[in-house]
Amino acid sequence: MDIKEYIRDVTKKARHASRDLAVATSDVKNPLLLRMSDNLLDGAGELQDANAADLRAGRESGLSAAMLDRLELTDARIKNMAGSLRDIAGLKDPVGAIIDGWTLPNGLRLRRVSTPLGVVCIIYESRPDVTAEAAALCIKSGNAVILRGGKEAIHSNIAIYQLLRNAFSETALSADCIQLIETTDRAAVPPLLTAEDCVDVVIPRGGKGLIRHVMDTATVPVIKHYDGICHTFVDAECDIPMALEICENAKCQRPGTCNAMETLLVHEQIAEEFLPPLKRLLEDRGVELRGCPNTVQWLPGIKEARPEDWRTEYLDLILAVRVVKDVREAIEHINTFGSAHSDAIITRNLASADIFQTGVDSAAVYVNASTRFTDGGQFGLGAEIGISTNKLHARGPMALKELTTYKWLINGQGQLRTPA
Amino acid sequence: MDIKEYIRDVTKKARHASRDLAVATSDVKNPLLLRMSDNLLDGAGELQDANAADLRAGRESGLSAAMLDRLELTDARIKNMAGSLRDIAGLKDPVGAIIDGWTLPNGLRLRRVSTPLGVVCIIYESRPDVTAEAAALCIKSGNAVILRGGKEAIHSNIAIYQLLRNAFSETALSADCIQLIETTDRAAVPPLLTAEDCVDVVIPRGGKGLIRHVMDTATVPVIKHYDGICHTFVDAECDIPMALEICENAKCQRPGTCNAMETLLVHEQIAEEFLPPLKRLLEDRGVELRGCPNTVQWLPGIKEARPEDWRTEYLDLILAVRVVKDVREAIEHINTFGSAHSDAIITRNLASADIFQTGVDSAAVYVNASTRFTDGGQFGLGAEIGISTNKLHARGPMALKELTTYKWLINGQGQLRTPA
Repeated sequence: MDIKEYIRDVTKKARHASRDLAVATSDVKNPLLLRMSDNLLDGAGELQDANAADLRAGRESGLSAAMLDRLELTDARIKNMAGSLRDIAGLKDPVGAIIDGWTLPNGLRLRRVSTPLGVVCIIYESRPDVTAEAAALCIKSGNAVILRGGKEAIHSNIAIYQLLRNAFSETALSADCIQLIETTDRAAVPPLLTAEDCVDVVIPRGGKGLIRHVMDTATVPVIKHYDGICHTFVDAECDIPMALEICENAKCQRPGTCNAMETLLVHEQIAEEFLPPLKRLLEDRGVELRGCPNTVQWLPGIKEARPEDWRTEYLDLILAVRVVKDVREAIEHINTFGSAHSDAIITRNLASADIFQTGVDSAAVYVNASTRFTDGGQFGLGAEIGISTNKLHARGPMALKELTTYKWLINGQGQLRTPA
Repeated sequence: MDIKEYIRDVTKKARHASRDLAVATSDVKNPLLLRMSDNLLDGAGELQDANAADLRAGRESGLSAAMLDRLELTDARIKNMAGSLRDIAGLKDPVGAIIDGWTLPNGLRLRRVSTPLGVVCIIYESRPDVTAEAAALCIKSGNAVILRGGKEAIHSNIAIYQLLRNAFSETALSADCIQLIETTDRAAVPPLLTAEDCVDVVIPRGGKGLIRHVMDTATVPVIKHYDGICHTFVDAECDIPMALEICENAKCQRPGTCNAMETLLVHEQIAEEFLPPLKRLLEDRGVELRGCPNTVQWLPGIKEARPEDWRTEYLDLILAVRVVKDVREAIEHINTFGSAHSDAIITRNLASADIFQTGVDSAAVYVNASTRFTDGGQFGLGAEIGISTNKLHARGPMALKELTTYKWLINGQGQLRTPA
């Protein structure tokens, strides 16, 4: 079978299986998820054998130590993976919620009801635990899923996939509800991204190169997240110790994440008072500061920021710093250079807080808190399939609700449309 | 200025203007809409002069009488257009609604609040009244709009556009909130469809060729509606006179619309009783029937349906008819051949109704009513910018709410993220 035919076959099977899954209730889906969780624990030995093959290949091809670490399925990680499947089973079913509804003057009863999207395709890079969690979130929300993992994890992914599929043997649902692309051939991707009749949405998770490739190739809708150029704006009237703590947390708690602060904006009236202690605090944590000319005036000796710094997601212990005139200039900066992910204001002034939250056009806009909270788990959504910087459909952390759409149900007693 | 630069300039102006519009309240937007409405009435003479130029060019280039009729701006149509702007001003502002919210254990208060999408691009074919209505719906929902109309209506569209823009002179908002592409050059379209940094969504309205072109070219998200292959399924247990009336209404009331019935499915147990009176009724209305072999058995003399009939949107007085075994076969047929637009069951049986509404994967699923009701106005949404057969973001009639997205507002008192 050539690769296009193989992908065509996979997508058609997924679409077919999605029909029964879409109407399955929690009574069917939850025991299935628990069974998957058990299978991962029971199959830990097989998993680690497969994982060893990936680790060996990774070492041979010169993967970095950090990459090899992400790839490894330790006992603890397998338990974790199984535990998160159990947690997902316990979440509220997002399907069948009545979003709104009313009765029309002619007696028609309308309801807008949440339904699964249908078939979700997830394209991701090396971490194999994504395989189990993404599959579980899709099943819980009634969606068939097509998984395309990174080549570094192919053996681990196939092993996980087999354990998940085995769980279907005791249900009336088809194991085709979960499909993993079992080849690392890149030619598999374009036919997935253009299978408009069989795939309802593609969610790429990975670096910018992957996202760009998906965006350029897909005719199927894509929910994506490019990068997180997150800002904190320290307003003139603010609690300085709080501002220092929040900046430290947003920059240093995990600098490699998309919700970490990359640029700090400081109101000119507080720059003199705020910047020197900030520098001491962050330099103690190993952070390199890059400032606008005004910042450099208050912090002599630091590097000057170049224009590209305002558009850079460092994912590292580097921070760009700019002094701004007021909250409006801060908003203008964020809307111009930011990535519409997460931005915060530290202020005591209610009007500034309102203007900032209204004016900043980002998925998450904070007052007096660290941007590091942008996360499905932290938001109390119970799980996360990704973070969207799209404006359509879902914005910010995506969980079960964001894996659903809706349909209109209209119940009548013989109503006919009259002219107009 | 070359065309790419022109479009770049238009999209940048729209993005810039959208910032102030996004935070404008109803106190600003509604008087602006009323002023636009007045301007259309006051400028009726100019409008009709411009329209005459389009009609003349249309006659010369051999437009059909039906096309010329759609193009004409009569006094009544101008009044209508002005009236609908006034109506839109009176609708509830969709921006700023608190969709949901909660307080986390650490004291962070989360709210999910509706916000404008930003910049909406609408690409449409000949009717010039779309220009005013689409612009008004976008302004009401806080979105800047870029309009690209059909070449047949270019003079009328420019005249409407000028009148709408003049209304901004008395507000603090920029007239750049509304932009019309003032050239009919096709080279204008691709740069619009790929202006990812300045355009948030494209809504094409028109024939399949237009939609396909937009889908193939756009990297900006698209909300689209291909076609309406709508079904009515007449179940075994049903009120036959009601079923006949609904079928007549769904097929004949306005056969050229996307929510008209194209295929009738009939339960085999009722075929003998139902099909002959249906044939008499519809043939009296000039409808041509095309049946499956089983249908032809009960209705000798009618044309036999070919396989492509099940996938055809006739938009005409033609109806494909198929006898099916039961509600499950009806659902299977609809999910296979339909366009996920609007489908109905006529039944007295509650279980059949439930199975049908749960199993049919379409934007609107009816029990005992005509599919002709799928429309923003009929649904009580107050206005309609289009009908979506997408599953992402919006499904079915799109009105003001569907022209918004949301953002997360998070208010704290200095919360920091701790490990995990």
